Amino acid sequence: MSDIPAATPPAFTAQDYAARMSRAARDAAGAGLAGLLVTPGPDLVWLTGYRPTAITERLTLLVLTPDSEPHLLVPALERPDAEAAPGAGAVRMTDWRDGQDPYAAAAGLLRPSGRYGVSDSAWALHLLGLLEALPRTAYQALTTALPMLRAVKDEHEVARLAAAGAAADAAYGEILRVRFAGRRETDVAADLARLLREHGHSQVDFTVVGSGPNGANPHHEAGERVIEDGDTVVLDFGGLKDGYGSDTTRTVHVGEPTAEELKVHDIVREAQQAAFEAVRPGVACQDIDRVAREVITDAGYGEHFIHRTGHGIGVTTHEPPYMVEGELQQLVPGMCFSIEPGIYLPGRFGVRIEDIVTCAESAGRRLNNTPHEMAVVA
Amino acid sequence: MSDIPAATPPAFTAQDYAARMSRAARDAAGAGLAGLLVTPGPDLVWLTGYRPTAITERLTLLVLTPDSEPHLLVPALERPDAEAAPGAGAVRMTDWRDGQDPYAAAAGLLRPSGRYGVSDSAWALHLLGLLEALPRTAYQALTTALPMLRAVKDEHEVARLAAAGAAADAAYGEILRVRFAGRRETDVAADLARLLREHGHSQVDFTVVGSGPNGANPHHEAGERVIEDGDTVVLDFGGLKDGYGSDTTRTVHVGEPTAEELKVHDIVREAQQAAFEAVRPGVACQDIDRVAREVITDAGYGEHFIHRTGHGIGVTTHEPPYMVEGELQQLVPGMCFSIEPGIYLPGRFGVRIEDIVTCAESAGRRLNNTPHEMAVVA
Repeated sequence: MSDIPAATPPAFTAQDYAARMSRAARDAAGAGLAGLLVTPGPDLVWLTGYRPTAITERLTLLVLTPDSEPHLLVPALERPDAEAAPGAGAVRMTDWRDGQDPYAAAAGLLRPSGRYGVSDSAWALHLLGLLEALPRTAYQALTTALPMLRAVKDEHEVARLAAAGAAADAAYGEILRVRFAGRRETDVAADLARLLREHGHSQVDFTVVGSGPNGANPHHEAGERVIEDGDTVVLDFGGLKDGYGSDTTRTVHVGEPTAEELKVHDIVREAQQAAFEAVRPGVACQDIDRVAREVITDAGYGEHFIHRTGHGIGVTTHEPPYMVEGELQQLVPGMCFSIEPGIYLPGRFGVRIEDIVTCAESAGRRLNNTPHEMAVVA
Repeated sequence: MSDIPAATPPAFTAQDYAARMSRAARDAAGAGLAGLLVTPGPDLVWLTGYRPTAITERLTLLVLTPDSEPHLLVPALERPDAEAAPGAGAVRMTDWRDGQDPYAAAAGLLRPSGRYGVSDSAWALHLLGLLEALPRTAYQALTTALPMLRAVKDEHEVARLAAAGAAADAAYGEILRVRFAGRRETDVAADLARLLREHGHSQVDFTVVGSGPNGANPHHEAGERVIEDGDTVVLDFGGLKDGYGSDTTRTVHVGEPTAEELKVHDIVREAQQAAFEAVRPGVACQDIDRVAREVITDAGYGEHFIHRTGHGIGVTTHEPPYMVEGELQQLVPGMCFSIEPGIYLPGRFGVRIEDIVTCAESAGRRLNNTPHEMAVVA
């Protein structure tokens, strides 16, 4: 079931980025902010298409305010890279050189007592540097101030997420044919990474292979454990394809599962299905979590579902909205997120099933479409 | 000149990590801080050996104070990973679950009005969360408060850096034998990455191949440009081997260089050599920069040396001390850092020569030892 790689989607243009920056500045004003301060990472990629070679102690800062054009401050030696970014045409650019004070340079772009939204992953070094340069400014994390800035995807973004999901699905179809028993988790993980790349991923972010008791640790990656006949194996993998994320989980079994393994797997399937069916505009994110959790709790495994039900996905594989108790944000058409309930039995095994789902006009639509039944592998 | 991979050095023990944490807490008190707040990244790796699978919006925080034992707060679902870290035995561990407030949990470990050092790369999201939970606390970036915390390496650390350097040198020896002309920069970069892994690197952080005019952009990585006969090519590559970094640069030439190319290369060689010879305990970091810069400026190329002369290296490839104007810190035996002057002629070509150097008892010692002459490649 190898597929023909899809054509590369048309690149986003400087106009696309200008529109995003303009909306972000408007949203910031609407939230009572003087502007947004964006550092390298997914916000900067989404707003400008610029992804510096490395995220370092050298300050790179995009300043968005409602009343002036976007301004990008960069280290002088990274300027050529920044100028090559697809959104570079939509920003004014200035640079600072080693030995100069980048915070003084940034301060010149800010209001001395403004309140700014700042990228979640901005380094404390930089935030504290700005605070020292402008002691009367105040800051709010971007996901606190504007949690839904990147959450609602347009049709081109949903199409990229769907293509990334289809590629991950194709990788899953092929991984079922490799040998599991007698090989290390890291060997299967390497196969998964190779398959994701073969299906067009430019970046592999995680290839979890949690066999037997390792599957009961939801954040186990892949280790030296040799997979055995009779193991339950959690496979959770994803990365970026054409700039947008994939993230899917299936739980497979080496040889025939026991009745208990099947029962636990069925409960997780039911929880995933129920949460998926609850997706529609206007439903609170926490209700997606509650629906999944209720199924697992009613079946007696509530204490073994030890994480939230899902997270948003876009230019990164982990972003708002979060499907978690306390998240009152309502679903809006265009939101894309994971639904991934699990049950983890310490020292024994774990089960998780995860699809990326988009909220469409009246219901959810899955961007992962491989079977939910527990596949038997060799 | 393929070498036999060196034996894996003995792992650092919980006692080693305990000693580092104890010294860090003591240094913090000496700097007038109530303690240190360490988030995932190189500080946490160095202090505990713990490297979470991913650095995410979920708070992981090591709290070091002079008057209590080290405390590590982790997300519940990452706890098994944290417990498997080599330094786990030297910390108390508590966890928080999705839906709980991690900042409230962290606040319970802090003094309500203390002044804390915080990891440079701690997310703004987390710092702002701590500030909201404890509005009277104050923060200072770790490299501002204790810039030299990780800068002075013990003999085991220097040995690891030397081994990483030797591995990078071996990779350089082999890359000289591959074909350059007619291949893309990315092809040679892939060769470099493969060679670093073959020589024991677990992680490749950068493989710069800057051919012709691309070499004049010091942060160019490697692109689609096809290398041509007559090109100057900057090769700057490194990563981690047994947890410690390598980083070396040589500038090679496809076919015989011109007189001008040789002249520029000779100036950079002379600058690198002069800066190396200036290394000894007590010399200010900025003087290393000044020595290199003076050679290049005197030769008439000062405006084309557009970056600092060097950076520290350890569990990361970029850390204090920085060899830059304004850095008054004196060299201390055990400091390890790059010396990497360069000349960049926009639109034409660039030259950079970089060795990692350690400050020994009375002079510098190079941890890279391949020839500085401009090698001719095919």
